[in-house]
Amino acid sequence: MMSDWNGKLDLAALVQSRLPGHSLPQPFYVDSSVVELDLDRIFKRQWVFVGHSCQIKQPGDFFTVAIGKDPLILIRGDDGEIRALHNVCRHRGTLIRREGCGAAGRLVCPYHQWTYERDGKLASCRGMHDGINRDALGLLPSHVEDLEGMLFVCLADRPPDFSAAREAMAPMLKPQRMREAKVAKIVDYDVAANWKLVWENNRECYHCDVNHPQYIKANFDHFNSDDTRPEVKQRIETAAARHELQCAKNGLEITHKETGMATFPDPDHGCWYAANRTTLAEGYVSETMDGRQVAPLMGDYTEADVGTLRCRTMPNMWNHSSCDHAVSTRLLPAGPNRTQVRVMWLVHPDAEEGRDYELEKLMPFWQLTSEQDWELCEFSQAGISSGAYRPGPYSTHKEYNVDAFVRWYLEALTQ
Amino acid sequence: MMSDWNGKLDLAALVQSRLPGHSLPQPFYVDSSVVELDLDRIFKRQWVFVGHSCQIKQPGDFFTVAIGKDPLILIRGDDGEIRALHNVCRHRGTLIRREGCGAAGRLVCPYHQWTYERDGKLASCRGMHDGINRDALGLLPSHVEDLEGMLFVCLADRPPDFSAAREAMAPMLKPQRMREAKVAKIVDYDVAANWKLVWENNRECYHCDVNHPQYIKANFDHFNSDDTRPEVKQRIETAAARHELQCAKNGLEITHKETGMATFPDPDHGCWYAANRTTLAEGYVSETMDGRQVAPLMGDYTEADVGTLRCRTMPNMWNHSSCDHAVSTRLLPAGPNRTQVRVMWLVHPDAEEGRDYELEKLMPFWQLTSEQDWELCEFSQAGISSGAYRPGPYSTHKEYNVDAFVRWYLEALTQ
Amino acid sequence: MMSDWNGKLDLAALVQSRLPGHSLPQPFYVDSSVVELDLDRIFKRQWVFVGHSCQIKQPGDFFTVAIGKDPLILIRGDDGEIRALHNVCRHRGTLIRREGCGAAGRLVCPYHQWTYERDGKLASCRGMHDGINRDALGLLPSHVEDLEGMLFVCLADRPPDFSAAREAMAPMLKPQRMREAKVAKIVDYDVAANWKLVWENNRECYHCDVNHPQYIKANFDHFNSDDTRPEVKQRIETAAARHELQCAKNGLEITHKETGMATFPDPDHGCWYAANRTTLAEGYVSETMDGRQVAPLMGDYTEADVGTLRCRTMPNMWNHSSCDHAVSTRLLPAGPNRTQVRVMWLVHPDAEEGRDYELEKLMPFWQLTSEQDWELCEFSQAGISSGAYRPGPYSTHKEYNVDAFVRWYLEALTQ
Repeated sequence: MMSDWNGKLDLAALVQSRLPGHSLPQPFYVDSSVVELDLDRIFKRQWVFVGHSCQIKQPGDFFTVAIGKDPLILIRGDDGEIRALHNVCRHRGTLIRREGCGAAGRLVCPYHQWTYERDGKLASCRGMHDGINRDALGLLPSHVEDLEGMLFVCLADRPPDFSAAREAMAPMLKPQRMREAKVAKIVDYDVAANWKLVWENNRECYHCDVNHPQYIKANFDHFNSDDTRPEVKQRIETAAARHELQCAKNGLEITHKETGMATFPDPDHGCWYAANRTTLAEGYVSETMDGRQVAPLMGDYTEADVGTLRCRTMPNMWNHSSCDHAVSTRLLPAGPNRTQVRVMWLVHPDAEEGRDYELEKLMPFWQLTSEQDWELCEFSQAGISSGAYRPGPYSTHKEYNVDAFVRWYLEALTQ
Repeated sequence: MMSDWNGKLDLAALVQSRLPGHSLPQPFYVDSSVVELDLDRIFKRQWVFVGHSCQIKQPGDFFTVAIGKDPLILIRGDDGEIRALHNVCRHRGTLIRREGCGAAGRLVCPYHQWTYERDGKLASCRGMHDGINRDALGLLPSHVEDLEGMLFVCLADRPPDFSAAREAMAPMLKPQRMREAKVAKIVDYDVAANWKLVWENNRECYHCDVNHPQYIKANFDHFNSDDTRPEVKQRIETAAARHELQCAKNGLEITHKETGMATFPDPDHGCWYAANRTTLAEGYVSETMDGRQVAPLMGDYTEADVGTLRCRTMPNMWNHSSCDHAVSTRLLPAGPNRTQVRVMWLVHPDAEEGRDYELEKLMPFWQLTSEQDWELCEFSQAGISSGAYRPGPYSTHKEYNVDAFVRWYLEALTQ
Repeated sequence: MMSDWNGKLDLAALVQSRLPGHSLPQPFYVDSSVVELDLDRIFKRQWVFVGHSCQIKQPGDFFTVAIGKDPLILIRGDDGEIRALHNVCRHRGTLIRREGCGAAGRLVCPYHQWTYERDGKLASCRGMHDGINRDALGLLPSHVEDLEGMLFVCLADRPPDFSAAREAMAPMLKPQRMREAKVAKIVDYDVAANWKLVWENNRECYHCDVNHPQYIKANFDHFNSDDTRPEVKQRIETAAARHELQCAKNGLEITHKETGMATFPDPDHGCWYAANRTTLAEGYVSETMDGRQVAPLMGDYTEADVGTLRCRTMPNMWNHSSCDHAVSTRLLPAGPNRTQVRVMWLVHPDAEEGRDYELEKLMPFWQLTSEQDWELCEFSQAGISSGAYRPGPYSTHKEYNVDAFVRWYLEALTQ
């Protein structure tokens, strides 16, 4: 046993015990000390997606988020810059803003009214004695990066490099113009599964055929190298040709036009980010139930038929963007068998609900796909908790990305 | 202290600290590491009652149960045999069936449709690469024994001997013919008490006089050697004589006709099972509120007046069977202060609710007795958690079986 | 780190790490092993306020309370004495009385009817064998002190001295005559904050200006040495003069007539108790919403204008008493981030609801103040749990008593 009832963990032995090409040993999914390590070594060290800059367009607009036990305020300053401040008063540690979002003139602690500027500087602490070093008592900041409207926070003192991710993804993301978008809807889920199971689910479409009837109509990634018949190949080529025509008009390029998923992550090259543009099935110009456009074109698009833009970053985000809307998914671990998941739908900034789009048409595709997946993840967690769980083999045809995720994870954990 | 806040437990010292004839030291009832040991050393090693074979009469019928964290499927195969399979897919550990019971053509994992035969063999795993050893990827089996319709599972690789239990109990159980019975009702309880307190409650009738007004009218086991007046002795003899007459007609024998409880368990002779036939009070032919028969005669009985058949097995089952119905109680530990209890009522296979029996007459006797007991167990748990709890003396007249249980338990735990 | 995920705590290092004049390091507020120590070393050793003797006026009257995991019965005996008995049967540890209060002829265990006198002596244990030493099987007692109607319990074998507290406080408390009072209302709260945060909140009025609009109208303690303008000084002197006139008639003395809080606790002189009589603001004769008297005069008072009597004892009680009612607050830790708080309103024994007082006028002042405080405490707990919490400086003008509390606590913990 790698983890006894005393909670003592021999991490090196546990990592060593993983069979190549197989799912992880049980403690990774059920042991509370592992989730502590996941938080300390991954979520506190890496770039964590927290939300969209378009949620906070005006100076003083803020939203809150907690990474593990660390509550943060993402707030736009008077200079227009977005900052990630720890939501913790420097006086006696009180949580400053409890709401999920809002607008703040200054940040005022409800307890004794210590007052902070929107950039975190301590503006006043009425009632304190002389000799207090106010300069040292601003709200503690975190690192934050705004990647074309996607906000990433790093809690580490020295964050890992972000520039390579920016360089690779910004040109892909730019035409979607999420920075100027409007949030149409946010749905929060409390999923009874380890965050790694949510990723493992996301990293293969082996489960799609039976579980995601709406998804497989729109996409090609459930076809894999082992089951691609000539007629499927023909369908993809036709679809890709159609998209490429439109994409060219928009100055875009289809970068993934094969069956199966694009490879991601890539632990062998330290690659925790990826973006690509993918062909949709015939008759689909958007990831919607019937494939039709359901909202005004976003960003730089002049035609609907541009495939989908997909991006994902370890350890906690993926996004699928169609011509008319973008959907981001954010994972935050909340225990060995709990993950808080937020799904966000973005549309054109001027689109008005009722007039330009309806939620009943905008949401079902990804709401269904998400909820179908959460249920599968919960089934997995329930079975893996058994004493009879044995790590099983990943399909080399269909689960290569699950294996890549597991290898990325083990490397990140032991770095 | 035997158990500090670090959860470290000196089991030998703890066992040593038990005073003979007294209730157990506190950690046995409140410490979460003890319940882990109870599961590992008792519930994972011994024969655990899980249910009745008549719950799954047809090939493909199944019910599920979890022993500790190990979910199982009890399923009848195409060959008519009942198997206990771990309810955990060999691919990525997904729980295969979530429902409490049902009928299954094959066992299909909801995630990627790995498909198992009803005997657990892997039938197909579409999408996997070549070279997978399918023979090694069947559902893991547990040992299972069917004792006249009572199903026992053992999770150990090498289960303890079952034949002596079968030999002793089968002839007693046979005339009730539970194997062919019908489940009239199942009620599940979540009792806020350690499983051992539920057993201690069951192993004496010292508490019956005040707490079980309906039970003591029907039975003699609340009378003990210290309080049996001549008129009580006379009543028992009269009742026993009456039953014996009928029993003889049915080829049965009254094996317990004294006041007080039959001795059980017997740790000195390693005896974890027992069955006996007991006299009921005058006017009672069934354990019902008014003593009358409330359903058709079961099994081989031709007359109602056959006393009650009682059997019990450590660590988790007791059953009282009257001429017309049988009631089984199953315990499963779910934490230091939680026990999941299932009570099941069985009747003749052809009996039809509304026509041949009514639940309002069938259930109250044991439903009341059970619920009265669960409340007492919860009061005990609440008091024993106090720093002022001191193990107290068991009455040698009335609590000899409680002491026997405690000794059986300590032996089983330290084996 | 002073406390790792294994729960191991280096207490000496943790205590050492506290910066003078600053709030406590995080583990004191969030670590479950610290709350165990708080219970063992403070709540099990010191005099803990449990309630009022007027709750149990007749022999047999009782109320129950749990200090940590130790359930107690406070019961008045046939001799009129109040005793604190462990609410745990000496037979098998069953909780004897589950209700919050009641009247008992004798204390009868619901399980096997072991019966105890109101003084805890075992009166009968029907069904036990001979040779049981009944004298040794009475309910275990705790130490109890009745201080002018306030009941204090000590679970330690050798309680600390109580006489100095009695000597200092009894003369101050006596005229209120709480011993003969009547309980008008009890409200229980489950506050999601460490008990020390509830004290820290109570030990300063720095937070009052914004958070307690009703409180600051009645009192002067939110003014502190740093912000007392001449007109405030004038107001206090006027109010004190008025009160002193009336107090003299009642044989009382205003002992605190400055701005700011009276100093308490005083760890340098081992002082865990204090009482004083304080001036109320102009127009206020009672701590009510509009300052008017809302119930008949209590105790020895012949005039309303007597200021307020205030007392408090570490580790868990404060009381504010006006001419017409008294309000006691009791804290009991229930986990690192949970405190059970009871607030009790007392009035004249003959006062009748509806005729002599109305709860809607009696309660709001302290109900509002209390609930405003619990919310602040919960905000504090939420922020302090962050990895970004850093102990902050206490205002020497306004938070001297918070610092005094923290120093008292650290000393009590390490004694």
